[in-house]
Amino acid sequence: MKVLVIGAVAAGLTAAYSIKKNNPEAKITIYEKGKDISYGACGFPYYIEGLIEEERKLIAKTSERVKEDGLRLLLAHEVVDVDFDKKELTVKNHKTQEIFVDAYDELVLGVGASALRLPAFQKMKGVFALNNLADANAIKNYIEEMKPQKAVIVGGGNKGIELLETLTLLAIDTQVIEFMPHILSIYDEDVSSLLVRELRGEGHKINTGEKVLDAKANEKGFVEKVITDQGIYEADLVLETIGLRPNTAFLEGKGLDMERGAIKTTLYGETNLPHVYAAGDCALIYDHLMEKPVYLPLGTNANKVGKLIGLAMAGKKPPFKGVQGSALLKVFEYEMAMTGITDKEAKRLGKDYDSVLVRTRNKSGYYPGGSEFFVKLTYEKHTGVVLGAQVFGKEGAGLRIQGLVASVYAGLTIEDLAYMDFGYIPPLNSVWDSINVAAGKAVAQNALSTEDI
Amino acid sequence: MKVLVIGAVAAGLTAAYSIKKNNPEAKITIYEKGKDISYGACGFPYYIEGLIEEERKLIAKTSERVKEDGLRLLLAHEVVDVDFDKKELTVKNHKTQEIFVDAYDELVLGVGASALRLPAFQKMKGVFALNNLADANAIKNYIEEMKPQKAVIVGGGNKGIELLETLTLLAIDTQVIEFMPHILSIYDEDVSSLLVRELRGEGHKINTGEKVLDAKANEKGFVEKVITDQGIYEADLVLETIGLRPNTAFLEGKGLDMERGAIKTTLYGETNLPHVYAAGDCALIYDHLMEKPVYLPLGTNANKVGKLIGLAMAGKKPPFKGVQGSALLKVFEYEMAMTGITDKEAKRLGKDYDSVLVRTRNKSGYYPGGSEFFVKLTYEKHTGVVLGAQVFGKEGAGLRIQGLVASVYAGLTIEDLAYMDFGYIPPLNSVWDSINVAAGKAVAQNALSTEDI
Repeated sequence: MKVLVIGAVAAGLTAAYSIKKNNPEAKITIYEKGKDISYGACGFPYYIEGLIEEERKLIAKTSERVKEDGLRLLLAHEVVDVDFDKKELTVKNHKTQEIFVDAYDELVLGVGASALRLPAFQKMKGVFALNNLADANAIKNYIEEMKPQKAVIVGGGNKGIELLETLTLLAIDTQVIEFMPHILSIYDEDVSSLLVRELRGEGHKINTGEKVLDAKANEKGFVEKVITDQGIYEADLVLETIGLRPNTAFLEGKGLDMERGAIKTTLYGETNLPHVYAAGDCALIYDHLMEKPVYLPLGTNANKVGKLIGLAMAGKKPPFKGVQGSALLKVFEYEMAMTGITDKEAKRLGKDYDSVLVRTRNKSGYYPGGSEFFVKLTYEKHTGVVLGAQVFGKEGAGLRIQGLVASVYAGLTIEDLAYMDFGYIPPLNSVWDSINVAAGKAVAQNALSTEDI
Repeated sequence: MKVLVIGAVAAGLTAAYSIKKNNPEAKITIYEKGKDISYGACGFPYYIEGLIEEERKLIAKTSERVKEDGLRLLLAHEVVDVDFDKKELTVKNHKTQEIFVDAYDELVLGVGASALRLPAFQKMKGVFALNNLADANAIKNYIEEMKPQKAVIVGGGNKGIELLETLTLLAIDTQVIEFMPHILSIYDEDVSSLLVRELRGEGHKINTGEKVLDAKANEKGFVEKVITDQGIYEADLVLETIGLRPNTAFLEGKGLDMERGAIKTTLYGETNLPHVYAAGDCALIYDHLMEKPVYLPLGTNANKVGKLIGLAMAGKKPPFKGVQGSALLKVFEYEMAMTGITDKEAKRLGKDYDSVLVRTRNKSGYYPGGSEFFVKLTYEKHTGVVLGAQVFGKEGAGLRIQGLVASVYAGLTIEDLAYMDFGYIPPLNSVWDSINVAAGKAVAQNALSTEDI
């Protein structure tokens, strides 16, 4: 069996290893158009900050290691065309400019995505996206060499807010500008506003509902000003974090099912075409609460489906019901997390839902050093099933989502959570754990709201 | 409806409030033999240490507050006899020595438990159990006044190990002596030994398999030496934490079902006698994994059943399937937690089980400042259902049990956990969360072990 894999970052490389493990006889070639492989993109903010000192720490597997492990890896090799009928790729070797054709029995598309860019900043120096290791190094080098004083981050999603921390810790005066009415729009506003209130209270500059219109460069071509519909901002560094577009242009019009550029797949990474698999930032992934494939370009998802592709190709399909939009965020001392669906998604999906947002403490009330810990539960009214959860607080808050991840996965109800046996010790929680408290409030609220029925 | 409640700490007081809430017309009288009510016993170690400075912080509700809330509370009133047929209590007022009879429609037994004591230390000064607020104050005062230098803690359960921290932080040279072959025997030894190794490595003195035989006092009656089957220990302070015995002697032989002194109850605190409820340290509680009532004298359990009694008395029985032996421990910088059943319990119950214990990290491998984080999963071989889990590590480790609590509650399998969508951010976990990793190893191990079948 001859397997070709396009892309050697999270999805492609994980798939290649999983195929090898489950099909030791498979001949696997990986084509990677860049020079870097297997990097942990989620670590970029800490690498730019200098907290992670060496680039090599971000690399899970080196090219040498991959080759030692029996995988044929070709860097600077771009796949420029695919013929799904003939099962052939057209590959360009960027070192020699040679173009050649290679045939496959099985194909894995792990082609990733590219950062969306605003036309306003085109070809301007000092303006970066953060999509790959080369970008991370470019930003890091620019900051070290040019010592920028004022930055604008365009886009207030997870990546933008993480980079607000990074630049602030590097003593760069930073302005976040978000086009939408709220930052971190995957969360409900009542939850994201808890973080925004803290950040603004500490002097961080976060503008929402503001649109970047234009930018000005100095005579050397370096960005100097960012012009929005509400003001002009001086900036000698601009980071664009406004979203991703799958690198699938070369695959269009060839019979591969896609939705807004992202490849449609089954739970196991199978596409609509036989012998063609896809995973990672170029593909949709099934969300078992949304009950449809969604675009969630995250490292966790790339790794999971990458591994499942290797199993599926060997005829093994372990029970997997999809993902559920879980996300973790840490910015300065704050932690925020979510799983399942939010109120606004429940509304969009036409669910008969309600929710509670409770303020509790992260330690027993009498134990010193505690802080506020917020839990929001979104539940289905007639069944009490917990559809989603969001949490916010300081140290330790983020991972408190894990009990809710498993609960949402299992379809547990607010009644289940109200009495769940979480254990107790004063330095870590309360005798009624915060999740018990939130669920108990939801039970009481739901009883009231359904009394009239 | 006239309700009598015996005991005003966790179970009794929670029940009284829950009855009042669900039956506003109920006339409720609470008899409490001591002078203290509603104290958080789990906070005693931190109160003795001085971290919690004021006694009042440990009191959730004062006597005044309870009375304001419409509950009749009588302190120093000991119930000395019960006639379940006549539905009458005989009560002794310890202030006036008066004895009187009071009748009930409904009775709640929240009589608690007393510390087991060794005969060796009888009537010796400087020797304490830690069972109630008076004990906590006695220990605190003794340490402040007598300034003991060397302590022996008899019993290496959760309380004994928490007190090892307390006394160590008070600069008292402390020796733990445990009769059983291992401390923290609710955990499997491969997990508890992770903590023991760290504690011993830091110079803490923990002896196991050692039996206290005798003790010697000085001429003033203060403890001076503890004599075991293996040595003689100088000590001017001894804490006994060897277990509890329900305060149910006065209830024996009256038709109330008990098991080794603990009252048998339903999920909602109902006893075998009509109109008689029990909860807290005097009662058993149903464990849905052990599939039987067990003795787990914990504040969480007292509060849960206390609340459920109030609902059940009003004819409401919310879905509740019992507890699952969850426990949290924090000692110095270490955190340990468990839920469900351990290997040794699975063996005792005759389960077809296996387990994995994995060493992971609490942060992404490339993120600085991480530490080791251990996850043990015990699962049923033929179904893959996770029966129990144990975790050990440093900061944040303990609450990582919460995802496993919900998983065990819901009967999820190792396959479910292997791909569960926990979210990811480098400072908090890894792209494959530690729980994914442990479950993935269990899946691989289980596939191998069932291949021959």
